Amino acid sequence: MNIAIIGLGYWGPNLVRNFSAIKEVKKIICCDNNQKRLSLIKLKYPSVETVSDFDQLLKHYSFDALIISTPVGSHYKFAKAALNAGKHVWVEKPFTGSSKNAEDLINLSEKKNLKLFVDHTFIYTGAVRKIKEIVDKGELGDVIYFDSVRINLGLFQHDVNVLWDLACHDLSIMNYILPENKITGIAANGIANFYDHENIAYLSIYFENNCFAHIHSNWTSPVKIRRTIVGGKKKMLVFDDMENVEKIRVYDSGVLMRKDEEESIHEALVQYRIGDMYSPKVAQTEALSLASREFIDCINEDRVPLTNGYDGLKIVKILEAADKSIKERGKIMEFNGK
Amino acid sequence: MNIAIIGLGYWGPNLVRNFSAIKEVKKIICCDNNQKRLSLIKLKYPSVETVSDFDQLLKHYSFDALIISTPVGSHYKFAKAALNAGKHVWVEKPFTGSSKNAEDLINLSEKKNLKLFVDHTFIYTGAVRKIKEIVDKGELGDVIYFDSVRINLGLFQHDVNVLWDLACHDLSIMNYILPENKITGIAANGIANFYDHENIAYLSIYFENNCFAHIHSNWTSPVKIRRTIVGGKKKMLVFDDMENVEKIRVYDSGVLMRKDEEESIHEALVQYRIGDMYSPKVAQTEALSLASREFIDCINEDRVPLTNGYDGLKIVKILEAADKSIKERGKIMEFNGK
Amino acid sequence: MNIAIIGLGYWGPNLVRNFSAIKEVKKIICCDNNQKRLSLIKLKYPSVETVSDFDQLLKHYSFDALIISTPVGSHYKFAKAALNAGKHVWVEKPFTGSSKNAEDLINLSEKKNLKLFVDHTFIYTGAVRKIKEIVDKGELGDVIYFDSVRINLGLFQHDVNVLWDLACHDLSIMNYILPENKITGIAANGIANFYDHENIAYLSIYFENNCFAHIHSNWTSPVKIRRTIVGGKKKMLVFDDMENVEKIRVYDSGVLMRKDEEESIHEALVQYRIGDMYSPKVAQTEALSLASREFIDCINEDRVPLTNGYDGLKIVKILEAADKSIKERGKIMEFNGK
Amino acid sequence: MNIAIIGLGYWGPNLVRNFSAIKEVKKIICCDNNQKRLSLIKLKYPSVETVSDFDQLLKHYSFDALIISTPVGSHYKFAKAALNAGKHVWVEKPFTGSSKNAEDLINLSEKKNLKLFVDHTFIYTGAVRKIKEIVDKGELGDVIYFDSVRINLGLFQHDVNVLWDLACHDLSIMNYILPENKITGIAANGIANFYDHENIAYLSIYFENNCFAHIHSNWTSPVKIRRTIVGGKKKMLVFDDMENVEKIRVYDSGVLMRKDEEESIHEALVQYRIGDMYSPKVAQTEALSLASREFIDCINEDRVPLTNGYDGLKIVKILEAADKSIKERGKIMEFNGK
Repeated sequence: MNIAIIGLGYWGPNLVRNFSAIKEVKKIICCDNNQKRLSLIKLKYPSVETVSDFDQLLKHYSFDALIISTPVGSHYKFAKAALNAGKHVWVEKPFTGSSKNAEDLINLSEKKNLKLFVDHTFIYTGAVRKIKEIVDKGELGDVIYFDSVRINLGLFQHDVNVLWDLACHDLSIMNYILPENKITGIAANGIANFYDHENIAYLSIYFENNCFAHIHSNWTSPVKIRRTIVGGKKKMLVFDDMENVEKIRVYDSGVLMRKDEEESIHEALVQYRIGDMYSPKVAQTEALSLASREFIDCINEDRVPLTNGYDGLKIVKILEAADKSIKERGKIMEFNGK
Repeated sequence: MNIAIIGLGYWGPNLVRNFSAIKEVKKIICCDNNQKRLSLIKLKYPSVETVSDFDQLLKHYSFDALIISTPVGSHYKFAKAALNAGKHVWVEKPFTGSSKNAEDLINLSEKKNLKLFVDHTFIYTGAVRKIKEIVDKGELGDVIYFDSVRINLGLFQHDVNVLWDLACHDLSIMNYILPENKITGIAANGIANFYDHENIAYLSIYFENNCFAHIHSNWTSPVKIRRTIVGGKKKMLVFDDMENVEKIRVYDSGVLMRKDEEESIHEALVQYRIGDMYSPKVAQTEALSLASREFIDCINEDRVPLTNGYDGLKIVKILEAADKSIKERGKIMEFNGK
Repeated sequence: MNIAIIGLGYWGPNLVRNFSAIKEVKKIICCDNNQKRLSLIKLKYPSVETVSDFDQLLKHYSFDALIISTPVGSHYKFAKAALNAGKHVWVEKPFTGSSKNAEDLINLSEKKNLKLFVDHTFIYTGAVRKIKEIVDKGELGDVIYFDSVRINLGLFQHDVNVLWDLACHDLSIMNYILPENKITGIAANGIANFYDHENIAYLSIYFENNCFAHIHSNWTSPVKIRRTIVGGKKKMLVFDDMENVEKIRVYDSGVLMRKDEEESIHEALVQYRIGDMYSPKVAQTEALSLASREFIDCINEDRVPLTNGYDGLKIVKILEAADKSIKERGKIMEFNGK
Repeated sequence: MNIAIIGLGYWGPNLVRNFSAIKEVKKIICCDNNQKRLSLIKLKYPSVETVSDFDQLLKHYSFDALIISTPVGSHYKFAKAALNAGKHVWVEKPFTGSSKNAEDLINLSEKKNLKLFVDHTFIYTGAVRKIKEIVDKGELGDVIYFDSVRINLGLFQHDVNVLWDLACHDLSIMNYILPENKITGIAANGIANFYDHENIAYLSIYFENNCFAHIHSNWTSPVKIRRTIVGGKKKMLVFDDMENVEKIRVYDSGVLMRKDEEESIHEALVQYRIGDMYSPKVAQTEALSLASREFIDCINEDRVPLTNGYDGLKIVKILEAADKSIKERGKIMEFNGK
């Protein structure tokens, strides 16, 4: 199998490195209109071929799948052309700049029976896998909230605000561990201090079953925080991605409402329950290594990828709603769907 | 000077302890309708007098000031009666349950020329004093955002939601360090998982000068976090109240927009600036000791307290707006005033 | 039962507070040659009696037990006089300034059938109790090392070095959780930078069964660290007393020697085993409350205290050996005993 | 310039990567008797040449310098042969297995006028550079102690104990920042729980000027700690290498002896001085990149490397003394030299 990779900026070299390590991949063709980047990748991976023009790539090179690692604004164009040319497609997150584009690509890929993979990287980490396992086996009880913070001094994106860049990760994790929770409304607040896109944003997500999610994204924080709390009726879980080893902690803690109503005027309404905490071992395999493996396997086994166009579409829809809401200072956007 | 204290629950004994240590205070009269609490305080402080009925207190005891440490719903009633009886008044936060009540008390105290003190405790901590000093001398440059998180397994309040209990602290800090920033709108989102008041809430505050504040309050978090970030154009500050010693860290960090627009399509939009960090020494004096000192001094010197009815009113207004917003899933509430 | 407390410096008031809360204690007599301290304690606890002279205390007051909270140099004198006068005795740590004195007191108390309690406070904390429970049930497997660090900016003692002040705590914990381990040698290194007693010291303890302990004590550290590692063949435990909640962490981690000797020249000698970690819930009761309860119960039930003269003696012996060793730059001191 | 690298185990590939990036280096020849490793390095760096036999390397390849990254036991043999053949030599730490070998190599290199570089990596980190800068400008005042802890689940070495592996780093840092401090004695304690070399060891170093150093090394700790405290009379510094960003903290803290001797029996002997803390920005350049640059520059400019044979020799001497001491349970080994 031959694959082509377009976009060799920050993330592209990681894709080259990981796909190089897959034995089914015979040849990698790298495409970027920046000649310097092509030279650099050729120096490090002498066996790759390079081409600076996407049309040339399509016309003159033989390959089975296109990996798209360009700014989000160009995802649709490259993906559509590749699908039309009969190639499987991998798109970096966020999937597309609009839900309409996302739907187009899904339809096209289904019509052509080609694989459409969206790289929601966190789904391939040991930590998020472990969290899903814990939630799925009911250890937390009913989940009542999901709160995620992802802030640091970050790379501003040219064409999208901080939610498209950072919250996209939190949304993919939320979507993965709470796939059945129906969203009923989206609200977002934030501020653009430096240019016309927000560098700080707060996203509120209302669910049908009295569950709530909130995501805090910030490119202008002096400290780096990546922490997600999943609150359940039975237990609560904290995922701190800045920890080297103990990334997940499960707390056997919660609140118990008091039954004795009469007394309660002079007494506490709730009692705390604080028990043991444990931190499960988490697999250390690089996420991109598992993701690239999944993509190749899906092609070979002709099955739908774990992170596919529908997952990408759902997140793009949430981000679109957030964009509308943030322009109207947090106006709720009705949302209908899982 | 004699003082009376009504409400001897969780916080009341701290008030007794601190006012006992002030030499101008000759006598303390403790009032609570719970006889057990009166006995307990008498055991620990044998010199206090006790009375179980507020009317009896007003009628039969001679005192100069009333300290109110009861649930927020009764603040107005007790404060009004005391002012009418010619007593100075100290009210625990939050000031009152409504802005109308707050305004009434302010007017009454001014008409009677009595002191009205609202106990926004954090304003009397060494850490918040130091933060104000740093902001006031312009070390951070223009403040562009204020982000505060105050979460743990907390005591649910009977009559108010988590914002009135916890965000009240963050608002008092915000108000203290950014007194000139005009608020233009308030939005709040959250969820009530256990009873009819929200146990988790997120408060967004829009300011006139492209500044933004956000407060996260949660009574149902397995981990205790109390962290405030103040982001300035020049430097940024983090106040972590869970640290024993290094509570404040000032980061000489920020973002610099690139000027060279043409290049920027292929280059980063911003550069980080990361410099030294320092943690200033913070005075350790108990906040309540400074607050009780301030109250007594204001009476003796006939001056307006540092934390007075207007400060209390402003915060009650914000919380009222938040309550309305949260019922409409984050609908913006226009706000007019500093 | 009446008790007398001598020494009302830093720790004495805590003793008054805790013994006041015990219902069997009818009267507390406080003794200190500093009149200011007596006045202060009388102000806070009006029901105590005060006396400034120890001989007066013995001659004119009726009491059942003496609590000694004076500098270590005077422990022996006061304890001996009290035992001779037929009083039970509680001594703060470290027990005495010499093992000879310690043995004298043990013999005297046994002859007179009086209780001799040594206040090794940590033995009464929820954390150390939990550690003992974990070690006793074999969860760690054979313990191979005990490493304890207790450093901060500390109060220099007039008459003893930092080991007598700080390592004394670590030794009591070690002694409690590893009571059967026979010590074969003691070595200590350190430095006296400010006066004639060491402000930094390192204590090495050799055990019979290929187990080793090390204690680091420092009064001149800019950071406060209180961390004990107990390494077992099966699991390892870390006790971090600076943590507010998760004081104990048990790691299912260790090393496995490789069997395949031939290969091992080019391969790693060991493999790591890294599994889950958990942090057990720890009881929060104040240690001194449990210790004072134990003392009173031992008198009433006529039984040997959990922390008695023999425990005190063992630690004094180790500290004596350490003093000798440190004067000879770490020369090993043979040690014979559990 | 051509260079040869012998030993392509854990560290070797990093050497290949860094020397590849130096423009003066025209060719790299890799030598290892393990064919699998040679193939792997060839795959990743197709331009390197490979040879499995050291004698072949010396006989048939043309190169200017030999980089030795093999187990310590073979350092002397390879270095001697290379120097005799007129090659400059880089040796990984620890320099040699004995001080005699170290002296031989120094003499040989001087006779032949060839460079002898010992790779004490930490000397090339931004953090250690910054520490030296702070110490050198007198900011800490006289240094009174150096305390370093380097523990985790580590790779046991076949031929040396944990001090040769881990303390070697701390010694190189100590030596670099306190080059003038004369060592007068060495003592070491520890235990071998798994095979005949110690997996846990504690090293005490006595200096002439009432300064003291202590190093704690452990391959069997469940937690990873890498923390060095440098205590000065004026300020104190903590270097925590597990921090991602704030690796160095300088504390304006210390102790002040009280002058008023008479009072001091009832009063504290010392007062704490606790002031601000700051964390200086630290350069992020990879240490090995600076080290390889230094080696090449020394050759080109014909000057002595920053980390040369004499630095290596001093550390080997300390480790030899520690080995002797540890076999006699901490017996002091007299030491004469800086």
